[in-house]
Amino acid sequence: MNILVTLDKNYLGHAQVMLFSLFASHPRAELDVYLISDDIGADDLGPLQRQCARAGARLHPIRVGEDWFADAPTIRYYSRAMYYRLLAWQVLPQSLDRILYLDPDILVLGPLGELYGMEMGEHLFAAAVHKGIIGLSGPVNKIRLAAYEADGYFNSGVLLMNLAQIRREMNPEDIFRFVRENKAVLLLPDQDILNGLYGERILPIDETRYNYDARRYQEYLLASQGEKDLDWVMKNTALLHFCGKKKPWNAHFGRFAALYKHYAVMQARYAALDEGE
Amino acid sequence: MNILVTLDKNYLGHAQVMLFSLFASHPRAELDVYLISDDIGADDLGPLQRQCARAGARLHPIRVGEDWFADAPTIRYYSRAMYYRLLAWQVLPQSLDRILYLDPDILVLGPLGELYGMEMGEHLFAAAVHKGIIGLSGPVNKIRLAAYEADGYFNSGVLLMNLAQIRREMNPEDIFRFVRENKAVLLLPDQDILNGLYGERILPIDETRYNYDARRYQEYLLASQGEKDLDWVMKNTALLHFCGKKKPWNAHFGRFAALYKHYAVMQARYAALDEGE
Repeated sequence: MNILVTLDKNYLGHAQVMLFSLFASHPRAELDVYLISDDIGADDLGPLQRQCARAGARLHPIRVGEDWFADAPTIRYYSRAMYYRLLAWQVLPQSLDRILYLDPDILVLGPLGELYGMEMGEHLFAAAVHKGIIGLSGPVNKIRLAAYEADGYFNSGVLLMNLAQIRREMNPEDIFRFVRENKAVLLLPDQDILNGLYGERILPIDETRYNYDARRYQEYLLASQGEKDLDWVMKNTALLHFCGKKKPWNAHFGRFAALYKHYAVMQARYAALDEGE
Repeated sequence: MNILVTLDKNYLGHAQVMLFSLFASHPRAELDVYLISDDIGADDLGPLQRQCARAGARLHPIRVGEDWFADAPTIRYYSRAMYYRLLAWQVLPQSLDRILYLDPDILVLGPLGELYGMEMGEHLFAAAVHKGIIGLSGPVNKIRLAAYEADGYFNSGVLLMNLAQIRREMNPEDIFRFVRENKAVLLLPDQDILNGLYGERILPIDETRYNYDARRYQEYLLASQGEKDLDWVMKNTALLHFCGKKKPWNAHFGRFAALYKHYAVMQARYAALDEGE
């Protein structure tokens, strides 16, 4: 299974917690972790290298230069790193035909094999629609990004990429043009680009299994007439996503906070053991 | 580190969750697990054997006959199994000088080496006082079990045993006599015996680190002037105890429920992988 993370140095520690949970949930899987960044050098990679070695996973760091997309338009305070997720296919090995992108603010709670192996046909991506996100409801986004015939507003935190199809269809110039034309209305750039340009080319996946918004337990429970209680979530949710501004490594309250913090502490303890060797 | 569990067949699965968390928290430890029961036969031990083998721990099942303590007094609906914890030293190897008893409704969240290695002097046990347990406050217990000069009412769910000292001092007859004399007032027999007979011979340990009552987050938080918040607990609490009638494998709500249920699911998944081999 190929896993993609794109991040800057500040998020490396958080990504290690996500990966710790991934490894714990996949004791026998063949895992290849691709890490794309522009500021993480060989010197920074020691702990992550040791973590991957301990889990038997292969780490493939890809450092892109600051000249990658030097001509791409930027938006307000966003750096060009906002493009890395959607354009990762340009720097990933040509031999890969599929990869699963995961945000670093995710806990992997269960097996991802079924998601990873799903039939994608000619879809570019598979992702989950997040309905009713605070202040960004589906209809509003549709208006904001001009009408398109997608199934809703996709969250870009979990993104299964059909790399073979992407290489055939996608083009950095389309993305840069879209950004130039919509600069004023792009709020969450990578997610808005994903929806605005490729919304119709995304295969929807079940958000309660593969991109569960950790803030929305009560909503999911009600929407499922009580079926999706805590037992259901712990058995069926494979990807628990701590969306939003409140991050679990800062203040976070709620029924999943202890679980996240426990993983963070466990990762730190295992890392300390690695160091001691 | 020697770990003791005493249980009947119905609790074997729950004990496996506790042990899964123990193994996860002790990746490099030398672990010997002693299991005392009167109804768990070799046929029942497959999953636990495989779990211990996977973790590199040694399992020592000790099956006691129904004639063990055939002459011991019984109380109401309690079986003679209520004595196994306090009299385990009689069937454990003479070579052991220390063992840590753990209830099956515990999650091990952190390292136990410091607790296990503590200086015990001539104390028989180390245990945590649980203050203000619903309906069983310290003073009431003191009255109920006749006055004794102990530090409070000790919870018997986590019990570090100084086996060398215990062999020198303890005697089944003392226990049986105490039970005969106090039959009418014994509510939680093993715990009442522990407190009534040996209360002064127990070394107190910090309950928020080594026997944290999962129902009492708010109380601990207030009693510590806000210091022992969720971050503190996740970093410092090594033994989280789901005390009381509501068990985490049945209905359980609260901030630690997700953590418990995740461990239970993980244990089941790893067990299924073992089976598949």
